[in-house]
Amino acid sequence: MKSFLSPTINPPCFTWVRPEQGEVAKVHEWIQPISSETDVEKSKDADFVVVGVPLSRSSISASGASEFPDYFRRAWKGFTTYNLDFDIDLSKMTALDAGDVPMHVTDIQKCHTNIIQASAALHTHFQTSKVCAIGGDHSITAMMVKGLHRAKPSEKIGILQFDTHFDLRDLSDHGPSNGTPMRNLIESGVVEGSNMYNIGLHGFFNTKDLKNYADEKGVNYITLRQARKKGIEETVRHCLDELASKVDTIYLTVDMDCLDIAYAPGVPASTPGGMRTEELLEGVLAAGSHPKVKAMDIVCLDPLKDTLVQPTVKLGTHVLLTFLTGVMLR
Amino acid sequence: MKSFLSPTINPPCFTWVRPEQGEVAKVHEWIQPISSETDVEKSKDADFVVVGVPLSRSSISASGASEFPDYFRRAWKGFTTYNLDFDIDLSKMTALDAGDVPMHVTDIQKCHTNIIQASAALHTHFQTSKVCAIGGDHSITAMMVKGLHRAKPSEKIGILQFDTHFDLRDLSDHGPSNGTPMRNLIESGVVEGSNMYNIGLHGFFNTKDLKNYADEKGVNYITLRQARKKGIEETVRHCLDELASKVDTIYLTVDMDCLDIAYAPGVPASTPGGMRTEELLEGVLAAGSHPKVKAMDIVCLDPLKDTLVQPTVKLGTHVLLTFLTGVMLR
Amino acid sequence: MKSFLSPTINPPCFTWVRPEQGEVAKVHEWIQPISSETDVEKSKDADFVVVGVPLSRSSISASGASEFPDYFRRAWKGFTTYNLDFDIDLSKMTALDAGDVPMHVTDIQKCHTNIIQASAALHTHFQTSKVCAIGGDHSITAMMVKGLHRAKPSEKIGILQFDTHFDLRDLSDHGPSNGTPMRNLIESGVVEGSNMYNIGLHGFFNTKDLKNYADEKGVNYITLRQARKKGIEETVRHCLDELASKVDTIYLTVDMDCLDIAYAPGVPASTPGGMRTEELLEGVLAAGSHPKVKAMDIVCLDPLKDTLVQPTVKLGTHVLLTFLTGVMLR
Amino acid sequence: MKSFLSPTINPPCFTWVRPEQGEVAKVHEWIQPISSETDVEKSKDADFVVVGVPLSRSSISASGASEFPDYFRRAWKGFTTYNLDFDIDLSKMTALDAGDVPMHVTDIQKCHTNIIQASAALHTHFQTSKVCAIGGDHSITAMMVKGLHRAKPSEKIGILQFDTHFDLRDLSDHGPSNGTPMRNLIESGVVEGSNMYNIGLHGFFNTKDLKNYADEKGVNYITLRQARKKGIEETVRHCLDELASKVDTIYLTVDMDCLDIAYAPGVPASTPGGMRTEELLEGVLAAGSHPKVKAMDIVCLDPLKDTLVQPTVKLGTHVLLTFLTGVMLR
Amino acid sequence: MKSFLSPTINPPCFTWVRPEQGEVAKVHEWIQPISSETDVEKSKDADFVVVGVPLSRSSISASGASEFPDYFRRAWKGFTTYNLDFDIDLSKMTALDAGDVPMHVTDIQKCHTNIIQASAALHTHFQTSKVCAIGGDHSITAMMVKGLHRAKPSEKIGILQFDTHFDLRDLSDHGPSNGTPMRNLIESGVVEGSNMYNIGLHGFFNTKDLKNYADEKGVNYITLRQARKKGIEETVRHCLDELASKVDTIYLTVDMDCLDIAYAPGVPASTPGGMRTEELLEGVLAAGSHPKVKAMDIVCLDPLKDTLVQPTVKLGTHVLLTFLTGVMLR
Amino acid sequence: MKSFLSPTINPPCFTWVRPEQGEVAKVHEWIQPISSETDVEKSKDADFVVVGVPLSRSSISASGASEFPDYFRRAWKGFTTYNLDFDIDLSKMTALDAGDVPMHVTDIQKCHTNIIQASAALHTHFQTSKVCAIGGDHSITAMMVKGLHRAKPSEKIGILQFDTHFDLRDLSDHGPSNGTPMRNLIESGVVEGSNMYNIGLHGFFNTKDLKNYADEKGVNYITLRQARKKGIEETVRHCLDELASKVDTIYLTVDMDCLDIAYAPGVPASTPGGMRTEELLEGVLAAGSHPKVKAMDIVCLDPLKDTLVQPTVKLGTHVLLTFLTGVMLR
Repeated sequence: MKSFLSPTINPPCFTWVRPEQGEVAKVHEWIQPISSETDVEKSKDADFVVVGVPLSRSSISASGASEFPDYFRRAWKGFTTYNLDFDIDLSKMTALDAGDVPMHVTDIQKCHTNIIQASAALHTHFQTSKVCAIGGDHSITAMMVKGLHRAKPSEKIGILQFDTHFDLRDLSDHGPSNGTPMRNLIESGVVEGSNMYNIGLHGFFNTKDLKNYADEKGVNYITLRQARKKGIEETVRHCLDELASKVDTIYLTVDMDCLDIAYAPGVPASTPGGMRTEELLEGVLAAGSHPKVKAMDIVCLDPLKDTLVQPTVKLGTHVLLTFLTGVMLR
Repeated sequence: MKSFLSPTINPPCFTWVRPEQGEVAKVHEWIQPISSETDVEKSKDADFVVVGVPLSRSSISASGASEFPDYFRRAWKGFTTYNLDFDIDLSKMTALDAGDVPMHVTDIQKCHTNIIQASAALHTHFQTSKVCAIGGDHSITAMMVKGLHRAKPSEKIGILQFDTHFDLRDLSDHGPSNGTPMRNLIESGVVEGSNMYNIGLHGFFNTKDLKNYADEKGVNYITLRQARKKGIEETVRHCLDELASKVDTIYLTVDMDCLDIAYAPGVPASTPGGMRTEELLEGVLAAGSHPKVKAMDIVCLDPLKDTLVQPTVKLGTHVLLTFLTGVMLR
Repeated sequence: MKSFLSPTINPPCFTWVRPEQGEVAKVHEWIQPISSETDVEKSKDADFVVVGVPLSRSSISASGASEFPDYFRRAWKGFTTYNLDFDIDLSKMTALDAGDVPMHVTDIQKCHTNIIQASAALHTHFQTSKVCAIGGDHSITAMMVKGLHRAKPSEKIGILQFDTHFDLRDLSDHGPSNGTPMRNLIESGVVEGSNMYNIGLHGFFNTKDLKNYADEKGVNYITLRQARKKGIEETVRHCLDELASKVDTIYLTVDMDCLDIAYAPGVPASTPGGMRTEELLEGVLAAGSHPKVKAMDIVCLDPLKDTLVQPTVKLGTHVLLTFLTGVMLR
Repeated sequence: MKSFLSPTINPPCFTWVRPEQGEVAKVHEWIQPISSETDVEKSKDADFVVVGVPLSRSSISASGASEFPDYFRRAWKGFTTYNLDFDIDLSKMTALDAGDVPMHVTDIQKCHTNIIQASAALHTHFQTSKVCAIGGDHSITAMMVKGLHRAKPSEKIGILQFDTHFDLRDLSDHGPSNGTPMRNLIESGVVEGSNMYNIGLHGFFNTKDLKNYADEKGVNYITLRQARKKGIEETVRHCLDELASKVDTIYLTVDMDCLDIAYAPGVPASTPGGMRTEELLEGVLAAGSHPKVKAMDIVCLDPLKDTLVQPTVKLGTHVLLTFLTGVMLR
Repeated sequence: MKSFLSPTINPPCFTWVRPEQGEVAKVHEWIQPISSETDVEKSKDADFVVVGVPLSRSSISASGASEFPDYFRRAWKGFTTYNLDFDIDLSKMTALDAGDVPMHVTDIQKCHTNIIQASAALHTHFQTSKVCAIGGDHSITAMMVKGLHRAKPSEKIGILQFDTHFDLRDLSDHGPSNGTPMRNLIESGVVEGSNMYNIGLHGFFNTKDLKNYADEKGVNYITLRQARKKGIEETVRHCLDELASKVDTIYLTVDMDCLDIAYAPGVPASTPGGMRTEELLEGVLAAGSHPKVKAMDIVCLDPLKDTLVQPTVKLGTHVLLTFLTGVMLR
Repeated sequence: MKSFLSPTINPPCFTWVRPEQGEVAKVHEWIQPISSETDVEKSKDADFVVVGVPLSRSSISASGASEFPDYFRRAWKGFTTYNLDFDIDLSKMTALDAGDVPMHVTDIQKCHTNIIQASAALHTHFQTSKVCAIGGDHSITAMMVKGLHRAKPSEKIGILQFDTHFDLRDLSDHGPSNGTPMRNLIESGVVEGSNMYNIGLHGFFNTKDLKNYADEKGVNYITLRQARKKGIEETVRHCLDELASKVDTIYLTVDMDCLDIAYAPGVPASTPGGMRTEELLEGVLAAGSHPKVKAMDIVCLDPLKDTLVQPTVKLGTHVLLTFLTGVMLR
């Protein structure tokens, strides 16, 4: 089947059969797959486009995060479009599913190139839509942001990152792995270190030399300990305000390993002492509500390691819906 | 074997062998099975009667919650009767186990009728005892309350509900499933909507039309977000005070899906962002201590999905003991 | 959405997106969903129709077998249409997916009526197709066969059953549960006991009175021990030959609990000492190759209990493909 | 509560509630608990007595085999008393449950002494009954046999052992652990090496020096490879015939680690290449049918490691019922 | 291989191969095994010595806590030596791994004697080092403290305990099991009850008589409820200050069952309503920073029961590193 | 640390501490790590060298097979060197562990080059040793064989393959993935199709075009069905005899997915209807005993998906030991 944004994105591998009558009530009835160029033309003004980025062979540790886009879509049936907390119905927004970025089995560089192209295509076709990439491992963030940069080269980009790690590893060690996206963006000149804000670092999960590199490049980081003292929401707002004064577009990246491992059995790199569910959701809501946040991703969630009732898959899905709630609160 | 409250309740399937001497120290040594009418006669003044309601074929999703009564009883061995937090020994109360309500395999209506009859029988024989139903899915709540109403028709009943859902689905869709108990009670005239208080709603787990129905019927609901701001305990006390001014008897129903899914792997319908263990226990304690709360249930805990060390089964059991601690604090 | 065989069958909840070019290679690319009456008209001569029957609330023990149709369809991606053992390509047959029979949450009788209607509709529209029902629990077999009987009342029906149990329980005990389908068919006069052949009984999983009933009604049974001595394939052929001399149509029912529990973690009722995988596949192949076998089902597989890599879901799917290989060997 | 065979055995911790009317159909309705000396007096002629031996702190590797007696009793509900393969109803035999041998938490020698005393008491009170010990780890075998010897000192004892290991480790290394029972019995003079027959050894699970010891003491062993060539049943019969010519009483010990690990996830010491379920059951049946086999045990099954649907617990239970079928075939 | 502190401690069963060049970055590159007396001599001034105490056959319930020392060491690879929260690099301290205390399979008293000797040897050779024992079950605490007392008889010892239980059971019941260490120390005169501070008790996990014993002996306890009201950190500091005024040396014992069971699937005795991860880490940090805390242990963590991504093993390891962070903050 | 066969192989990440005295009894005491060039010099005549090849990012499906070398080494403690079936002690052979081939995180081609170099280095230094590669996914086989070819270019190589798949996928689709090794070797001219023998194909796991390619290139394949009819051992001997008449060196590759999925939960690609454990072991033994088999590998075993007691890891380890038994039987 010819790809709709040829050759950068595969259409979804299945399409939900929708009820003929009755209003939209569940997420899978709301988000519309796009599989032809006609679809694309008709939906340029969509509020929101989701795209799967099923790449995790670039992960340092063996990972099945490439399976998350599939699990994510299947989880939609368990969520309504109505957020009771805020009396908001997401289905008032137009939402699209662009399918998955095609991947190569043994050529990771090719995968990364595909992601850049797909991101550029999406940001070009859907100028005003929020684009959300569903990873995949964290290496995809560098590529999604590069694609955004390619599509809108005049916009200065900043990043808000929820993460237990700096992700500032040296690319000369092992290439653009999931430990490197932030450094990749700094070194390629796409994002300045001083326009990166990392919330959630804590404990024994980064080496000292990464901190030194961060300091050298002016990367901003607020440890989880500090953020808790100030309040997660307030911390996020503060970071976004600073960022907004410096950049045109803010990209939110949610590395699910920022969570406490008790909340995220499906994130092998999550750690003791990380964020609680409600803390992450609070932070993501605040981010979603900021007018300059125009793209996001969710990465490093390995559904093959989740427990039986899939708490992590559900949480990852909730993160997206919470972000969108924020968008509607703008 | 002839049933002691013939034909409404099956006797417990086993009776614990008690130590000949020495004081009661564990819960399984304390709660006494009743298996004959003589037992019933002798124990009319029991402080507390537990009854298993092993029905979950009325659940919308496939559920093994019907197995919880068995797991619940086996979990007793892991708990003492002594609550150190309050220096209270539950064994000073008389406690009975009435066994399980008999169920039919393919006739769910018959199951529901049996529950109503069992509830009525228990509330008739044990006029002053607290009756606690161990589900089973949430459809049983409507039946337990109808039985209470049948036994004590002159008493006006109110409900305090811990839940992630309204449980106000339309019965004409799929009959009295686990999504309907509150609507069932409203439509049957047993409880007024305005005498229902739901604590714990949040996120994307209810459709907008259910909220509209709730508003129309005057159902009271405090979202988890709101309750956290005010404090769970204070919220519960406030609801109970309001209820107490309007009704004679308050029925507490604890749908375990009000919990965050990280705390409740054995509740498939639990969700990201739900209550933490200590929040639920705090709420249940407050409810137990209110003099008008005379019956309760615990529902939707599927022990077949719990993880190895059974955190959810233990938590469900702890909920009951915490409720009883509240009773002794009155 | 209006149902294509209104009102008896729901269309599949999603449709696979097919590659535009290139030959069919995987099962999910081969079996075509039908979702409109036009589809039905065009495909009356299909070789094969699969229909999901997601009912397991009629199961004596708590069961998630209702989820198998979904897991079954998702497993298709792991199988090619080409059977190397016999150099046979199944994709030379026309294959349809009729979707799922609609179920009611609390009215099991209604579910059973729906199954009868759906089966009758399928056997009426697809006169020459093999119809395969994907359960669900074993109660569905009685309904599928009744539907077949309704569609083709003049045809005498016989049954070949792979099972660890007689499934001859008394319907007056608990209604038409998964323990009763064979008795249901005998008592309703749809199939004579002497036209039933059960292969696989063994051990301590049937009460004596069921054997007595079987003997009384002339039900034929060959224990697994006996079948192994003679050879599974030869046993099946012998049974089919006997049946063929007495009936017009043979219905094959595969209760997955005939397997040894080591091979079938997703079948809670499977037992130590049951069939090995290759024995069941050998038997099913022999059955598929018999010209009078015109319908089949696979039941009692609970995918929620399967282990991580889903051995049982894969085996259940393999059973169908093996049956179809037999069909092509005719 | 005073123990009925004071002080050697604890009564069962619960007694099943039996149906008032109707014939016995399930195993838990058949095996009667004994909890008083009166019970003992009345049932001296019982065909069969089961006793739990919940000791596994004497296991070299960390083990939860001490929990098997409890899981074993709970598994009874899943088995009828009727063995269809042989048209035999076990409930024609009188069967007793003597409860568990009391154990000490930190004094393993005391545990072993208790087992010896309990075994002696059982063999004294139930002169003609088959006594079956449910372990626990393999160290209990030496103690059960010593108790038998104490009760009937004039009877010469032989042992038939299904095992992947010799269990002939040197007691001076780490005391009477689960690796030593056979050596223990040889060194204590209770059983001669030449009256021991081990079936099932294979692979890389014994050191050379254990084989040397076995040879030196004349222990008979038939590897699984050899047994398979000859046939398991024939091998067992041959061993029993040899034994019967030399001893008065044969004790059967089934170390569940003789199984292939694919069949026995609940036996951590089971191995690739071990017995299949049907091989073990065939061997146990043959053993049960020999008139000189008067006692048996089942050991090293750790139910805490079993998978969800408990294949190993069910298999362990089936081993006992198969043994008893053999007894009725005598 | 001759033991370096013959005969009390086994050397580690493997030694990590270290990178030839480059700075230490991961914990397994930092902590040095000692396997000869020369090693010992050279490292008398080590800041920190870890010793494995793989004993859990003294546990009341079946436990695999004996495996934790191995899992603990393997977990080191997942942690850096750099604590970002405090900008502290642990690798500035000299750290040793003394291997495991040798255990006997069937003689628990011998195991306990070995622990006392090993503890005494460690505290004698490493006069100024912090000694951390990795259990094993809680019975080891009494032995580690006795060994400390033997090495430094003139120092008065106090204990800070994080625990859900008193661990004051009567030793005459079942010997020095994991329910008895505190009573053991009181009765042996090694530590006075009034110099024990227990933080974390709550719920239904202690019998009333244990509380009475605690009161009688002047044991100090702060329930989790009380500690949360005051703040965990403040509570710990308060206890340590009181202790410091009374004793020379403070021993910290962390029973991992103080955690909420949602955070600690690998601690079967953990309970609903226990500590959250961050609460425990906060408490341990405060303890580590107190100058009189000179030894510690971590007990009752059973890695065989942990879930797939090993949240509990990682948390147990984090507890040690957090303690050491406290040490560097002194 | 400088690599001993610089730069092709990393030394083992830990070395076992060996007992000072006493004979070798367990596998981990037998196989010696080599970590310096001196080691290499001294051990040129080793009978056997094992090398880890931790690559699975070249796998089509997400895989953790890269972790198997580590799990494999840790499993050694569970095996003695003595094979009782044949009274053979493997420790009479000299055995080495060369560590792991170094891998790159994001450059799969670099990984493959490293494997070729490592294989060539091993076959050059250890001219007469059996070299066994522990995968990793099946893509490594092409590289190990290419390395062998580079080291010994004059030797004609044949392959005996146990596999459910042809592994003849087109490299132009997705590069040298785990679906391509046999085609890779044919196309690169290293091995002729007619010198490849595949045993174990069955069912629906290969597309028709792969069979066509196999036929075209003269690849020999014996389906599992055919092999079972003839006998696995006889089939293997027959293949080896044919091969021996055509080539100088035979390479054995064991893709663990040839197993039935019931036996191999740790091999996601294993299938219903595959080999049983004893069949594979029988085949491997026969292969090991053939004098021309000089190298082997074990691939596609993902220990992260194995069940609790690690049946698949143990089986994979047993495969190696069984192969070596064959070697000693030559």
